Amino acid sequence: MTAPEITGEIRARRVSAVDIARQAMARIETEDGRYNAVTRVLHQRAMECAARIDRLLAAGQDPGPLAGVPFGVKDLFDVRGEVTTAGSRVLAGSSSATKDAILVSRLIEAGAVPVATTNMDEFAYGFATDNAHHGVTRNPHDQDRLAGGSSGGSAAGVAAGFFPVALGSDTNGSIRVPASLCGVWGLRATQGRLPTEGSYPFVASLDTVGPFATSSAYLRATFEALSRATLPAINTRDWRIARLGGWFATNMTTDMAQAMDSLAGHLDATQVVELPEVARARAAAFVISAAEGGSLHLPRLREFADEYDPAVRDRLLAGALLPAHIVFKAQRLRNWFRRQMHKAFVNADILIAPAVPCVAPRLDEPTIRIDGRDVPARANLGIYTQPLTLAGFPILTLPMRTSGLPLGAQLIARPGREDQLFALAAELEGSGMTASPKKHDHAA
Amino acid sequence: MTAPEITGEIRARRVSAVDIARQAMARIETEDGRYNAVTRVLHQRAMECAARIDRLLAAGQDPGPLAGVPFGVKDLFDVRGEVTTAGSRVLAGSSSATKDAILVSRLIEAGAVPVATTNMDEFAYGFATDNAHHGVTRNPHDQDRLAGGSSGGSAAGVAAGFFPVALGSDTNGSIRVPASLCGVWGLRATQGRLPTEGSYPFVASLDTVGPFATSSAYLRATFEALSRATLPAINTRDWRIARLGGWFATNMTTDMAQAMDSLAGHLDATQVVELPEVARARAAAFVISAAEGGSLHLPRLREFADEYDPAVRDRLLAGALLPAHIVFKAQRLRNWFRRQMHKAFVNADILIAPAVPCVAPRLDEPTIRIDGRDVPARANLGIYTQPLTLAGFPILTLPMRTSGLPLGAQLIARPGREDQLFALAAELEGSGMTASPKKHDHAA
Repeated sequence: MTAPEITGEIRARRVSAVDIARQAMARIETEDGRYNAVTRVLHQRAMECAARIDRLLAAGQDPGPLAGVPFGVKDLFDVRGEVTTAGSRVLAGSSSATKDAILVSRLIEAGAVPVATTNMDEFAYGFATDNAHHGVTRNPHDQDRLAGGSSGGSAAGVAAGFFPVALGSDTNGSIRVPASLCGVWGLRATQGRLPTEGSYPFVASLDTVGPFATSSAYLRATFEALSRATLPAINTRDWRIARLGGWFATNMTTDMAQAMDSLAGHLDATQVVELPEVARARAAAFVISAAEGGSLHLPRLREFADEYDPAVRDRLLAGALLPAHIVFKAQRLRNWFRRQMHKAFVNADILIAPAVPCVAPRLDEPTIRIDGRDVPARANLGIYTQPLTLAGFPILTLPMRTSGLPLGAQLIARPGREDQLFALAAELEGSGMTASPKKHDHAA
Repeated sequence: MTAPEITGEIRARRVSAVDIARQAMARIETEDGRYNAVTRVLHQRAMECAARIDRLLAAGQDPGPLAGVPFGVKDLFDVRGEVTTAGSRVLAGSSSATKDAILVSRLIEAGAVPVATTNMDEFAYGFATDNAHHGVTRNPHDQDRLAGGSSGGSAAGVAAGFFPVALGSDTNGSIRVPASLCGVWGLRATQGRLPTEGSYPFVASLDTVGPFATSSAYLRATFEALSRATLPAINTRDWRIARLGGWFATNMTTDMAQAMDSLAGHLDATQVVELPEVARARAAAFVISAAEGGSLHLPRLREFADEYDPAVRDRLLAGALLPAHIVFKAQRLRNWFRRQMHKAFVNADILIAPAVPCVAPRLDEPTIRIDGRDVPARANLGIYTQPLTLAGFPILTLPMRTSGLPLGAQLIARPGREDQLFALAAELEGSGMTASPKKHDHAA
């Protein structure tokens, strides 16, 4: 059943929310051995939330637009009564959260049911979901391949059909990369539009939080619940769609180039816009991430360095030692780059770009080829997502129609224009330009 | 003549603005050999501005509230046609400014006449006005002593009677310290209230620009011209004045302690407020200044390090190498300290504190005694001004009534409440609680 079908059946009382939640969790326990997407099944909390939905319905009350829909929660959001580990052994001994993160509580208020917490790169620092303590998350489309990260458990759980919706965070591409590699829909909202309260921070000045879903319509419904806004219905006719060139047209594999040509062709996106200094923008995002992340973790690293994933620890320590001068320079570049992004929209309503350079890398060879060299996938899968992070514009990632493994594209709008992204996404989905999650039934 | 007398005489056409300007410049040329307050006399520009005032009057037009009043300009403000050196040999070969800094143009529009640029610590980095290239500025009250800095030439020029008004900048105390040591009035306005366009920057997140003057009324008139605002007349009756304790009650000499007791007694300021973590606030201002200043200068230091004043160069280089982590920590402390400052005003309308720990140090022994140790005056004269900088609140410095050399006090208000500072300053001046500039006639 799709998410709307679940809600429809529950509202019609042909199935109970408790049964849906129970089946979702049973399926996770049976099947997640293959993927390692989930770190913890939330039996008690799921039953409480589902029972509340059934009670509301029995009393003739409205249980909300997402009634009974199971969702996964990246393990950096607080879930009341659970320890928020942010994928780290360092936090595993912390006290349990006393209340839900604001996005978790908004989904529950809308009727959704939290069924699991999901795997991630430690402290969200990576594009692989290769966790030193929980192990690697495998891609449901090919278990010998990465799911992408850092929100890889959430993306893989949606792709595996464990839950039609999940929460993730995107600092440099941590929603967009795994959504693309797992063939699901994801949104990095305008920076600051969705509240981060109750989520474990990484880079204060770049962090965003947001949803994954199985369809554009459901991503939209989830975003409306998360933002407590109702988006207007708008017409996409006569929109000018431009393709990002330069940096965003190099380093991709042939299948990605073909998928982008096909998408651009459908959208009549003949115009190519070239953003200046994209390599520097990516470097600035690296520098700001390392410095702010390093500053956040330094007090804890001084005491517990051995408890960190070595790959994360070394980057955080290097970041904490960066001279302020370098960071000020990155921040100046950021202001400049944001202005260039605004200029790119003078003659375009939406920009399109690939979200990843290639399909999911193999687990036994976690590298990708950039500028003729094989470089670690963990740090480099975000070559197309990370520079755009710097500007804070909203970006929707959609699963492209491909003949093989999943690939994702980025639709980029001006700040605050998520409504445009969802309108265009619906048009593309309706035209059969996107992949449908055919591989699995969803929840039950 | 006082400044209002000058304007009155000029308006009544008993003397011309050209004559006043000519006399002011003649006096600088005769007497500044003693003080070294001035770096350049602005003959041509002064004559143009003064002639314009006379023409306007001849045509029956209003030449503005500061008609004909000579003013000095710290040599980090652009003056059209002049090279802005910021006290440095590095900039001496730059091209001339093509337009006036915004504060210079606002004073000229109000009728004032720029007659000289003034000496400063190189790049505003110091509390001494001991300039490696232009030499040291001497205190008009005792030529064997420092004038304070970094806006020492402006303060000394006002104290010497060269001009009743001058422009300076205050990052960590660069208006308040020299105003106090030279016995004149000065204002550090609410951060952001006066525009910095056309002034050479030092520390983007702490820099302010503002006036010196010979009286509270004239400081107010100048501030009104600079801010293009007319302040309301308000009554000081029943105001709660509190004295800052702790850090602000230690390390001062006996004469300063007596002057503060006398001021507090007059104001019935029996309440003592202790701000927390003042030493850390001062350290944070040091760190932010060194890091942002260092970042600003690093490209130039890489090419021209030998051209810098060694004392300035070494601090800028050290600042450019500070880890970003340290600066982030200082910025976090800043946000916290600002909240503590707001709390300090819950039961007080105005806070008072000393502006300097002692009278001007001798040139041949430029040290002051802090915590029982003799430390360089250049870096430490701002012990009472620098921590307050961090919060960005407006502070007026007044010349206290003393039996010997000048000493200044700080009146501190909530952000945007310069009107309160001027109301209280006028009351104190009217009650004879402040020093009058008796030593010199002013301009002509």
